[in-house]
Amino acid sequence: MSGGGRAFLLTRYAEGPPAPDLFRLAELPAAALGEGEVEVAVQYLSMDPFPRLRISGDAARAPQLPLGSVMIGRGVGVVTRSRYPGLEEGTLVAGELGWREVAVVAGEGLRRIDPTLGPAPLSLGVLGPSGLAAYLALLDLAAAKAGDVVAISAAAGAVGSTAAQIAKLKGCTVVGVAGGPAQIAFLRDQVGVDHAIDYETAPDLGAAVAAAAPKGVDVFLDLVGGPIYDAVLAHLAVHARVALVGTIADYNAAPGAQDLAPRPNYHLILKRARLMGFLVADYAARFPEVSNIMAAWVREGALAPFQSITEGFERTPHAFAALFSSGPVGKQVVKV
Amino acid sequence: MSGGGRAFLLTRYAEGPPAPDLFRLAELPAAALGEGEVEVAVQYLSMDPFPRLRISGDAARAPQLPLGSVMIGRGVGVVTRSRYPGLEEGTLVAGELGWREVAVVAGEGLRRIDPTLGPAPLSLGVLGPSGLAAYLALLDLAAAKAGDVVAISAAAGAVGSTAAQIAKLKGCTVVGVAGGPAQIAFLRDQVGVDHAIDYETAPDLGAAVAAAAPKGVDVFLDLVGGPIYDAVLAHLAVHARVALVGTIADYNAAPGAQDLAPRPNYHLILKRARLMGFLVADYAARFPEVSNIMAAWVREGALAPFQSITEGFERTPHAFAALFSSGPVGKQVVKV
Repeated sequence: MSGGGRAFLLTRYAEGPPAPDLFRLAELPAAALGEGEVEVAVQYLSMDPFPRLRISGDAARAPQLPLGSVMIGRGVGVVTRSRYPGLEEGTLVAGELGWREVAVVAGEGLRRIDPTLGPAPLSLGVLGPSGLAAYLALLDLAAAKAGDVVAISAAAGAVGSTAAQIAKLKGCTVVGVAGGPAQIAFLRDQVGVDHAIDYETAPDLGAAVAAAAPKGVDVFLDLVGGPIYDAVLAHLAVHARVALVGTIADYNAAPGAQDLAPRPNYHLILKRARLMGFLVADYAARFPEVSNIMAAWVREGALAPFQSITEGFERTPHAFAALFSSGPVGKQVVKV
Repeated sequence: MSGGGRAFLLTRYAEGPPAPDLFRLAELPAAALGEGEVEVAVQYLSMDPFPRLRISGDAARAPQLPLGSVMIGRGVGVVTRSRYPGLEEGTLVAGELGWREVAVVAGEGLRRIDPTLGPAPLSLGVLGPSGLAAYLALLDLAAAKAGDVVAISAAAGAVGSTAAQIAKLKGCTVVGVAGGPAQIAFLRDQVGVDHAIDYETAPDLGAAVAAAAPKGVDVFLDLVGGPIYDAVLAHLAVHARVALVGTIADYNAAPGAQDLAPRPNYHLILKRARLMGFLVADYAARFPEVSNIMAAWVREGALAPFQSITEGFERTPHAFAALFSSGPVGKQVVKV
């Protein structure tokens, strides 16, 4: 039996943006493998906003992670021991591994990664849940097509920067909303959006959206919620499709202190628009097909797998905290 | 050339519920028929909430009807003169006729009514836009099917009471929300809903919806918006479909004084629910087919055409004002 390695444990619940000192580094004892379980040597951890919901003081919104638990998070690594028939030693796998160097988890929940598709970190980004969400929310759920005006919030993030590129590949006009000069420059110069709106400095977000999309927004991929969502909803085109993929604006809200907005019903009726909630897990049957399409685009140079890799497991809490600032662009990954 | 008859003219814009004295009775001069126009002897006027939007002080929300104009409203009547080839004298027609005894309008915008399908007032209710909206929003847009739990707001109204009956015909469980003991008794005893919720007296609307639909609401036909909409959205089932058909709660709001609510994004994502704006005019191609289905249901006694007919053209403003109270049930029609 190998050693348990290091892990980050949750020490208290977050108030506002998640500070690095919410977590404590600890050495785990080695764990025995149960029936159906595998041991994984974790190589990379995926930084995603949604685990913030599980460490909130507000138990009413999402089940709370018990204090003292290993912090949750997706990762990719190599199977080092196995009592799960489908995953032999040496297999590259991705899934919910937690913030730890060595994970013992049920084999059933893991996804086998084809290492020929690209480097391992891509299986967390453009070839993983972030990229799959971008593709499926944009093309399946919202049915974006050539000629559509597509607005994307958090456009400089992992999902947003991938969706923006796919929309351009499909012949759409792309309006990206992001925060701060670094993200705006990234959207303009690297992602190649048609219009970039800085929500931190735009004097009137609604006017900025109207100027970028004078005929209205046909497709809106929303990862943020809050006032950005309000501004885009007020400028939809007739028969617009809105895919709701995330609500980052709410994740750091204090319990019960969600902020208020006018209801968009009248506007949705006038435009016969659709607001549609999206969870990538619903599309599991399509993952192999879509991963292959995305990998081909990456190989051909049609899709840039923007990512930023933080070196060192001990920097994980800092990389997670940075997600909620306006700094980073593309997929954020930690090399364990 | 016949006389112009009497009409109600708009004298000032509404603040709050539309009072009868917003309108002034006047004798119109006889009008010459232009090319493509017809003269219609109006028999019945349809009382609908949406014209309230056109007489608001808030020009930003909907185009304002100019002061001094004939008040807008749908009606049914007989063509008495025609310069429109498709509609000869004696034809029964329905459409936007306005609050007047004699209407001169473009023939193109009128719908020819088959008098064998039922009495003329039904062409404004169960066989007209109200009934078509109920059928198409419920079965086409929201795809309600046997076993679904269907919630309906303004369930005692023209659209709501028809939708509730169609949902029962299709094998759904129906939760109707309405206001006051008369509407609740109507829903229970005549419409035959499974659960009736009185929004005026329920101490906690959310708890009432949760009790009526413990497994969540699969389909929500919303005609109201406001706190009723918030309460139902908080209790949706996974993959719920919400058809937004009206926002009566907002119609009487003062300019810029729309009331605020938490954004439902997080909940819509968690439930992968869909909010879809609906306008019946989008489905014009289906009107003949659906009218025939509805007329057959009425003939067989499967669908009761609940309506209340106010006698006398001069009572039109009072019938319109009453729409915004919790009193009336079924389709409200004025016999001219």
